[in-house]
Amino acid sequence: MAKRVYNFYAGPATLPLPVLERARDELLDFAGTGMSVMEISHRSKEYDKVHMESMALVKELMGLKDGYKVMWLQGGASTQFYQVPLNLQVPGKKPQYVNTGVWSKKAIKEAKLYGEVDVLASSESGNFSYIPQDVKFSEDASYAHITGNNTIYGTEWHYMPKVPDSVPLVADISSNLMDKNEDFNKYAVIYAGAQKNLGPAGVTLVVVREDLLGRVPENTPTMQKWSTMAAKDSLFNTPPCWAIYICKLSMDHLKEMGGIPAMERINREKAKALYDVIDGSGGFYKGHARPDSRSLMNITFRLPNEDLEKMCVEAGKAKELIGLKGHRDVGGMRASIYNAMTLEGVKVLAEFLREFQDENQ
Amino acid sequence: MAKRVYNFYAGPATLPLPVLERARDELLDFAGTGMSVMEISHRSKEYDKVHMESMALVKELMGLKDGYKVMWLQGGASTQFYQVPLNLQVPGKKPQYVNTGVWSKKAIKEAKLYGEVDVLASSESGNFSYIPQDVKFSEDASYAHITGNNTIYGTEWHYMPKVPDSVPLVADISSNLMDKNEDFNKYAVIYAGAQKNLGPAGVTLVVVREDLLGRVPENTPTMQKWSTMAAKDSLFNTPPCWAIYICKLSMDHLKEMGGIPAMERINREKAKALYDVIDGSGGFYKGHARPDSRSLMNITFRLPNEDLEKMCVEAGKAKELIGLKGHRDVGGMRASIYNAMTLEGVKVLAEFLREFQDENQ
Repeated sequence: MAKRVYNFYAGPATLPLPVLERARDELLDFAGTGMSVMEISHRSKEYDKVHMESMALVKELMGLKDGYKVMWLQGGASTQFYQVPLNLQVPGKKPQYVNTGVWSKKAIKEAKLYGEVDVLASSESGNFSYIPQDVKFSEDASYAHITGNNTIYGTEWHYMPKVPDSVPLVADISSNLMDKNEDFNKYAVIYAGAQKNLGPAGVTLVVVREDLLGRVPENTPTMQKWSTMAAKDSLFNTPPCWAIYICKLSMDHLKEMGGIPAMERINREKAKALYDVIDGSGGFYKGHARPDSRSLMNITFRLPNEDLEKMCVEAGKAKELIGLKGHRDVGGMRASIYNAMTLEGVKVLAEFLREFQDENQ
Repeated sequence: MAKRVYNFYAGPATLPLPVLERARDELLDFAGTGMSVMEISHRSKEYDKVHMESMALVKELMGLKDGYKVMWLQGGASTQFYQVPLNLQVPGKKPQYVNTGVWSKKAIKEAKLYGEVDVLASSESGNFSYIPQDVKFSEDASYAHITGNNTIYGTEWHYMPKVPDSVPLVADISSNLMDKNEDFNKYAVIYAGAQKNLGPAGVTLVVVREDLLGRVPENTPTMQKWSTMAAKDSLFNTPPCWAIYICKLSMDHLKEMGGIPAMERINREKAKALYDVIDGSGGFYKGHARPDSRSLMNITFRLPNEDLEKMCVEAGKAKELIGLKGHRDVGGMRASIYNAMTLEGVKVLAEFLREFQDENQ
């Protein structure tokens, strides 16, 4: 038996054990080919099956209607920060962004290279501890952009902002991809680096409504245009086959578990287990996020002082609870409990936190 | 024992068996962490060691002097086709390209989006069956570009073109990375998709002379600039950790085998074994590449007619010799024998080809 720990890293992050075991078992011989998934041609029928099924699974799990293109791109969400404005710009119009943290700010910075940007709402003055409520995008926006979950601060959108039908709503859901059921057809574009909630680093899921693929200016370099990959089912050049394969196994696993609605029930139970510890600690643990904006995926909290925070991270490590140090922008501790983190793992963490308080209060 | 075949795919391609075995053995528990390489934070000390060592190995194996930046990027060589002109452009100057096939043409097409391009030499009229000889780049070029090996046609540069000291020489060596010893310090920039001669698809090796990192225009999107990743040791955002890890294991293996000079001796023996079959076949097998331009990596050849070619590919498959169908632009057959293909595998193929001729002539 391989040693395994409870991994609360913010990303790359834990993956479902059955996915890893299967990847290991067929690493030298995939589907009876006598070759690894890493070694077979991306034009082979064996890889093609993985590739096409992976895209179909995204549509199936998210309940996407016809008219969406699922793409596997490279370069992370950071690459989408410029590809979104490049591919969605409309001359004479401005995009509208909501600023809910570091990643929103980076997205806004890149968008400004393509023209003026309207920052419609921001929670920066409150150290991004909440999601602005009652956001309404305007009719004249070229597109609307939100960051679905904010890994650093532990905040998440729990309502759909108001967007006129004519304005495409774009969401970076890198850290809350498929964490809860939503009408994903309300989004025109979603993008997500895989390494938090889906698979390994090295592939980015981008889903685009097909009617938007014509917006990109002519004379744009081939690899900067979504339309290049959309037209070739992400096989214009060699895709990151291994990463897509792991994402596919991970979605198979999610489907077997009952899909996104079943995952959401587990995620809510996991998050509640930790927020209950925080809320029941009499102020020993103090959550960073405002209760109405609390993330299901990243639980951020402080302790009475930095020494205790350091002690708590180290004590966790000693019990094989890994990756609990908070991001420097918020400090304290962060437990990232993505889809692949089990309820069992969260319960072990909750129990540890209760004990730590008892011993150190 | 897992079933294994002889894999002659052009890319993704075969990987060294010890690399795959090690990746399998530590897939669930890397370096005693209790986590997969795919699951550990890219900021963890365990991943950082892999990352830094992988970059040091590139420098060590290639004998690169100080002043080069090794980077792990994403998006394949196709992404570099635009990043090269974007990052190396000089106002008022034109780059010079040598056109030796489909991939050169794609590189030239993207460069034209940034201004005029001078195609200095081309072998297109000869269906790219040779590398133009005695190429001399001009003093006034912004940079010089060659494609080191042409996968489709089976041609490879076997001499260093003349380049004035002031002109940076850029080479796409996706399909002949580290296949033979050269003075790599003659290049200012080299780039290579990993999935042929180094690792899995999903990571691109880019090596740039540091003095060139300032050429990129201000207001270029962050992820399009080499300088972004150069300044952060390719950790500006989450890198494709798994792919880099496999490349690192693959370079460890190459180093154990004696490095590039030892690899070159094996590669020359492998290529000779197949070219000897072609040259000794009395015209039954006909090589596509002119002898002075023959690739060590991709052996391309025709048979007397297409029916025989089809038969030969199928007969090979039946003997577990996989991936021998030629590219449609050349037709016939192609054996890709990258660094990871063993001499033993090539000998099995050579023997098979001799037998096929005996039986079907």
